[in-house]
Amino acid sequence: MRPYYSDKTAVVGIGQTEFSKNSGRTELQLASEAILAAVEDAGLTTSDIDGMVTFSSDSNDELALIRSLGVPELNYTGRTRGGGGGSAATVQLAAAAVASGMAQTVVVYRAFNERSGQRFGQPMTQNPGLMAMMRARMPGFNMYHVYGLDTPAKVYSIWYQRYMYEYGVTNEDFGRYGVIARKHASTNPAAWFYDRPITIEDHQASRWIVEPILRKLDCCQESDGGVALVITSAERAKDLPQPPVRIVAAAQAHTRNGEEMYDFYNGDRADFPECRALGRALYDASGLTPDDIDVAMIYENFTPVVFLQLEALGFCGRGEARDFIKDGNIEIGGKTPVNTNGGLLGEGYIHGVNNILEGVRQMRGTAPNQVANAEHTLVSAGRSGIILGKS
Amino acid sequence: MRPYYSDKTAVVGIGQTEFSKNSGRTELQLASEAILAAVEDAGLTTSDIDGMVTFSSDSNDELALIRSLGVPELNYTGRTRGGGGGSAATVQLAAAAVASGMAQTVVVYRAFNERSGQRFGQPMTQNPGLMAMMRARMPGFNMYHVYGLDTPAKVYSIWYQRYMYEYGVTNEDFGRYGVIARKHASTNPAAWFYDRPITIEDHQASRWIVEPILRKLDCCQESDGGVALVITSAERAKDLPQPPVRIVAAAQAHTRNGEEMYDFYNGDRADFPECRALGRALYDASGLTPDDIDVAMIYENFTPVVFLQLEALGFCGRGEARDFIKDGNIEIGGKTPVNTNGGLLGEGYIHGVNNILEGVRQMRGTAPNQVANAEHTLVSAGRSGIILGKS
Repeated sequence: MRPYYSDKTAVVGIGQTEFSKNSGRTELQLASEAILAAVEDAGLTTSDIDGMVTFSSDSNDELALIRSLGVPELNYTGRTRGGGGGSAATVQLAAAAVASGMAQTVVVYRAFNERSGQRFGQPMTQNPGLMAMMRARMPGFNMYHVYGLDTPAKVYSIWYQRYMYEYGVTNEDFGRYGVIARKHASTNPAAWFYDRPITIEDHQASRWIVEPILRKLDCCQESDGGVALVITSAERAKDLPQPPVRIVAAAQAHTRNGEEMYDFYNGDRADFPECRALGRALYDASGLTPDDIDVAMIYENFTPVVFLQLEALGFCGRGEARDFIKDGNIEIGGKTPVNTNGGLLGEGYIHGVNNILEGVRQMRGTAPNQVANAEHTLVSAGRSGIILGKS
Repeated sequence: MRPYYSDKTAVVGIGQTEFSKNSGRTELQLASEAILAAVEDAGLTTSDIDGMVTFSSDSNDELALIRSLGVPELNYTGRTRGGGGGSAATVQLAAAAVASGMAQTVVVYRAFNERSGQRFGQPMTQNPGLMAMMRARMPGFNMYHVYGLDTPAKVYSIWYQRYMYEYGVTNEDFGRYGVIARKHASTNPAAWFYDRPITIEDHQASRWIVEPILRKLDCCQESDGGVALVITSAERAKDLPQPPVRIVAAAQAHTRNGEEMYDFYNGDRADFPECRALGRALYDASGLTPDDIDVAMIYENFTPVVFLQLEALGFCGRGEARDFIKDGNIEIGGKTPVNTNGGLLGEGYIHGVNNILEGVRQMRGTAPNQVANAEHTLVSAGRSGIILGKS
């Protein structure tokens, strides 16, 4: 059954800074620039903003931002738990605020110096503040970090290895996704890896990060940058300059035995049950099926999680992602083009929120690698997701 | 105009642990106990929960909690920014989720060992983790902490002192609120200060914390404990055992020059403009006026902020809170009884959320110091608030 909120709200503005390895400015500056660009794109002014949503871990306080931006008053703020798995939940919180009448115009933002400042890829044990957060926030972390699982690459690889074992998937298979991401990035001028495609040979020649699972070219970037979206009611969106992008469905899915974006405790560890639950929630709320999805934006801190999400979301059967990718289905012109901006591997890693902006561009028809006649985009962050619709 | 969400949701369960100075157990245990009690009070099981809301700073991760409690799947999580000023925003986020159809049954929780663990009243400069958070999250903190403003009592006193100067208010005036809070607590068996009332002489004999503004008995407690509420649709609430408590209005109000719960940058520093904006938002959304409010639950980390909120919310005029309190208006039987549980000074400091539970009890008619025929409770946390209604 379609829930009340479905199609009651729309994305009416998007904005971003450049994606770099050294922004040379504060995170507050990055957030402010991205928000100003999004508000301008929406044909609004900062006085129109009355709500803000970001990650709990974003360093940009709403009070600092409203002073920086000249926003007179906020009546709604909300933050998501955890990391990139919650990136699409930002839109859910904003849509809930607008659909329920708690706010009229909500900005979603995420901005950080994740390469030049606090790097995500380094051992967490080297950072007391991050360690304290991880120990408190990630239930199993206290148990496994003492065995040396102290970087995202290591933590996630344990899960991916089971998937490789069950379905005979190799690192070269993973590499095929990496090649596609870089191909899409190579024709996206905003991507860090613009005009720099790679071959499968390049991938196979890159050094091991966690042998025999992840090579360097299986890993997302560490990036500096900021992104923002403006969300308002579908009714009000009609009067604004951009073609409104409908928020058809939005959900989170956290299941009992999950960790952040990996699964150590489920009986079947070659599956992604949170993402499977997410798919059910999104399809139920929208009345759509995987066949109705014309573009999929899929969070990838590492290449294998694209395979697990393609299967969990029903774009292909279990163990079939390898051939689904090899056969060209996720490229432009394929059955379900994926990460048409180059994704987090190719465009930049703004904690997944930049993928939502690409979903919006696809629905507007303004993406650098536009999918012809695209009507629906599914944005998945594994344990949060949205379905966007063309207006 | 009444917004869509108004009266669409209700509080159907409340639960709490004891409030102590040394709980002797983990924060996860405290949160789990409070949630279980709230779910049982609601006549539900943990399988009914599909959403959770807490503070960004709460150490209890939703993934740890759902494993602890046996919740099968969450489809919505949200967290509030900042500290106690956001305590009522938890209910706003939960009500937005339910009213919009993002979730059916949302638990709000807050649990910590704030006395036996990380104390809030100690100098922040002694805690590197807290310092890092404060510097990032509170815009002006970097500027003023270097001048020795390193505890909440010091930071807030600067603001209160201006209020005292403008209206000739004395520390003894503040003490009259403290006496009332302890009087209410003295007949609330759940209060830490149950059966321990104080006189104004006791107050005036307590040591200075920030002379001549705050004495020890002007300060809220540091407490260990957990509290939780269950929120669902008004429709579903009819089938549950407790008399549903209507969520009539819910808002946040963050204005351009505000800091967390104090104002250094507004032109008129003897006012609380965020709270004034909050009052407007709540009265607009509900169609009610201050005269319609039968009970007010008012966040008080320190006694003076009750004065500022009473004035900003329109319960009395500017500079009139002193006499309003002196004349008995905020006691049981008065015009607008305040903090009938003893408030954060008398009952315990669970970051303001325990005051919401008392608001629910007043609307059920089950408060230890019940206000006769109470129809509406306003819960204010200064920059977030709700109006609850009897069903």
